[in-house]
Amino acid sequence: MRIDLNCDLGESFGHYSIGNDEEIMNYVSSVNIACGYDAGDPEIMEKTVKLAIKKGVSIGAHPGYPDLQGFGRRPITMSHQALRSMMIYQIGALKAFVEAYGGKLVHVKPHGALYNLASKDYDVALTLAKAIYDVDKNLIFMGLAGSEMIRAGQAAGLKVCRETFADRRYTCDLKLVPRGTEGAVIEKIEDSVKQCLQMIKENKIITIDGEEKNMSGDSICIHGDNKHGLEVVKSLLDSFKENNIKVEAME
Amino acid sequence: MRIDLNCDLGESFGHYSIGNDEEIMNYVSSVNIACGYDAGDPEIMEKTVKLAIKKGVSIGAHPGYPDLQGFGRRPITMSHQALRSMMIYQIGALKAFVEAYGGKLVHVKPHGALYNLASKDYDVALTLAKAIYDVDKNLIFMGLAGSEMIRAGQAAGLKVCRETFADRRYTCDLKLVPRGTEGAVIEKIEDSVKQCLQMIKENKIITIDGEEKNMSGDSICIHGDNKHGLEVVKSLLDSFKENNIKVEAME
Amino acid sequence: MRIDLNCDLGESFGHYSIGNDEEIMNYVSSVNIACGYDAGDPEIMEKTVKLAIKKGVSIGAHPGYPDLQGFGRRPITMSHQALRSMMIYQIGALKAFVEAYGGKLVHVKPHGALYNLASKDYDVALTLAKAIYDVDKNLIFMGLAGSEMIRAGQAAGLKVCRETFADRRYTCDLKLVPRGTEGAVIEKIEDSVKQCLQMIKENKIITIDGEEKNMSGDSICIHGDNKHGLEVVKSLLDSFKENNIKVEAME
Amino acid sequence: MRIDLNCDLGESFGHYSIGNDEEIMNYVSSVNIACGYDAGDPEIMEKTVKLAIKKGVSIGAHPGYPDLQGFGRRPITMSHQALRSMMIYQIGALKAFVEAYGGKLVHVKPHGALYNLASKDYDVALTLAKAIYDVDKNLIFMGLAGSEMIRAGQAAGLKVCRETFADRRYTCDLKLVPRGTEGAVIEKIEDSVKQCLQMIKENKIITIDGEEKNMSGDSICIHGDNKHGLEVVKSLLDSFKENNIKVEAME
Repeated sequence: MRIDLNCDLGESFGHYSIGNDEEIMNYVSSVNIACGYDAGDPEIMEKTVKLAIKKGVSIGAHPGYPDLQGFGRRPITMSHQALRSMMIYQIGALKAFVEAYGGKLVHVKPHGALYNLASKDYDVALTLAKAIYDVDKNLIFMGLAGSEMIRAGQAAGLKVCRETFADRRYTCDLKLVPRGTEGAVIEKIEDSVKQCLQMIKENKIITIDGEEKNMSGDSICIHGDNKHGLEVVKSLLDSFKENNIKVEAME
Repeated sequence: MRIDLNCDLGESFGHYSIGNDEEIMNYVSSVNIACGYDAGDPEIMEKTVKLAIKKGVSIGAHPGYPDLQGFGRRPITMSHQALRSMMIYQIGALKAFVEAYGGKLVHVKPHGALYNLASKDYDVALTLAKAIYDVDKNLIFMGLAGSEMIRAGQAAGLKVCRETFADRRYTCDLKLVPRGTEGAVIEKIEDSVKQCLQMIKENKIITIDGEEKNMSGDSICIHGDNKHGLEVVKSLLDSFKENNIKVEAME
Repeated sequence: MRIDLNCDLGESFGHYSIGNDEEIMNYVSSVNIACGYDAGDPEIMEKTVKLAIKKGVSIGAHPGYPDLQGFGRRPITMSHQALRSMMIYQIGALKAFVEAYGGKLVHVKPHGALYNLASKDYDVALTLAKAIYDVDKNLIFMGLAGSEMIRAGQAAGLKVCRETFADRRYTCDLKLVPRGTEGAVIEKIEDSVKQCLQMIKENKIITIDGEEKNMSGDSICIHGDNKHGLEVVKSLLDSFKENNIKVEAME
Repeated sequence: MRIDLNCDLGESFGHYSIGNDEEIMNYVSSVNIACGYDAGDPEIMEKTVKLAIKKGVSIGAHPGYPDLQGFGRRPITMSHQALRSMMIYQIGALKAFVEAYGGKLVHVKPHGALYNLASKDYDVALTLAKAIYDVDKNLIFMGLAGSEMIRAGQAAGLKVCRETFADRRYTCDLKLVPRGTEGAVIEKIEDSVKQCLQMIKENKIITIDGEEKNMSGDSICIHGDNKHGLEVVKSLLDSFKENNIKVEAME
């Protein structure tokens, strides 16, 4: 049994510093590095890529909307051509940093509002998937397990990485319970661990309504910018060790 | 005998359209495509790259300062690390478009104020050259003939392309006579043609002071955004044909 | 009888030039000047304000989404607080230029996708109206005649300017027929003139379905960036003269 | 005897938070609020202005170069027209927020690299001063005591506020000892207090070379983004109380 742990980082900008990049890289197997449109800048990208290569974690691009002020969390209505071009642009920029240091860009995970849109809108997801494929057909498309991103990635001929969440509950149709809804976020670390273990070992999950559903995932999203997130990842790593679950990135 | 003709293009932005990209591609052998920092945007880049591949012209990146309002013509005092990172970012972005369409990125020419600075400042030129090398050591560094860019490119292990100008006069130390100085710009097309022919056939040039100096170049910069520029290039092509000078890009 | 003619301008940016600002100012009574977020930049704003004051036309701010690449035509999902703050910012910036030259900022008209959203969404329109009011309660809110902007402007205590279009047909519920629909755009100049005259003299309009409906407007939107637009405005001015309709801005 | 204490703030941006704005406002008499070009955004500006009005501190604009990535600390070579227009734009934007909440914009202090340039270059300082004057001739120009900004502000007809530093040493010609030079920064709080007291009470200062020089200032710059800065300001306030020095902003 194996699972990938991924984390978003490289999100600082110029004089503005956020995140806990160096520490979290000790615990995860994959990192999603911001590409300068909604977070990050070229210097941060270069620094983060160097660190990721040194730490031996798998590197992915984390492209988003051209909106630093909104941190990529505000949907912008764009043409499919505009979406495609901005994907190629951002992935290409990050890929150059990775290759400049002898590394390999492994996956692409859309960020923020773009991730949310692509998880529900097949056409958008397919536009993103084709852009990724056209940059490098060996890139892995990381997206929400069970979402349109997974379907579109497969249709485009890409290997996909089905992302799940350690700290979020699911509805009976296997979507994330929206933030703000009661019970959307799993507060207790042992519940996060339990959900992850069941998903990995049995390919099952208990929904917010208490139903047992089939659910498979290839990677678990970790938040490294707060204390709780670090505790979750440490507890996961302990339980994975006990259960002989290897933590490693897809290839 | 052979010479490359290059032109800056892909400089439109969003709703704003400039240049005469499609026509000029009929006449030149190389194009320098803006990379979205001082001109161009991802959609324009993709469109321009597709057109360049269709027309069979050699493609170069034309990175510049992060300053759309100043069109890359305003020097920004930046650290060498910042210069390096923004080069890798922009070259990588353009490279992804070129490779998405099965093409090959051939050269890099800095734009505007960055070109001017790198032509005089060896350390800056070396920083740019190393960044180019680290993206792809087979890229050609295009810079002002006789300038620090050429020295730095060679020191970094890059192939260099020495750029000369059809419509500019040179000082006795083979620098461009600064715009604004009387005689800086060659007005008559036949004088432009004469200067280019002499440079290609005899590796010589007549400076603004009337001296004959040794001067070699691999590429001539053409301006495609005005009627005069188009006339210059057509006249050059006619005279090159008569003189059995092949117009082709470096490889 | 009187009517205002308004035109969007000051939309150039840095090295990029669009529009025909100086000529169109000879024909209109009001101008809506871009505020640097979706078009225009501080230098263009200063130049355009100076010209408008010299020409004696009434000056309005034309704020929009922070999206130069999309020219303000791409909706961005923003909080009401973000909408409010960006309105105050842009209006304040333009107001400073106007007052620096002894002029007076008279009205505010949202641009592009923001105009479209505010014409249909009362809450958004009210947020914009309150922001305008808070900058200067004597500012006039210019918006689509019959739309939510007019209702919201009045509710906020602002004087409103009901905008109509010379070259667009209306549905039976007095909304603009969407571009792309057959008959949406009035092609013949005499039909544009006829629609405007009937609206001004009889407060009536013939909808795309041939029905006669009540319709009042205070200002007609003119497009100055193409030859047809200039011909329309000249024909309107001729017919207004014949019909003793004064062309002047609201105050 | 009286003195103003000023602090730069409102420098957060979107999702990125820096500074300790709310606490530092308890100690200073004036705040310099970033204007969205090199730091700050419209929402931050509105929030900071509201807080400053609530706390009763005097409000100034803190305009800078259009360079968020460089935090306004990288010089950009710009025309005087461009400098003028960007000053009017930024000051106008902040002024609108201040007036929307019934406050009054009192002063303008250029930020970062623009401050440094204007302190040495009289022509630049005069361009800035005239721009300030043209927005509102009652605005106070805050600049480095003894620098070209003070001369230019007076020549332009503005009231000036001579800024000094609690934690920096001066050369014998009353310029700041450049950062990086030994002794440039005053480490001990009691030395900072001593320098400020001598300057206020005797209009004198001891230079880094130990000479006593005449030196007058109207405002002392405080850093609120670190613990040391807060300790300095508290010690200053204690010593001012003991010495009957009133802390209040210029008007």
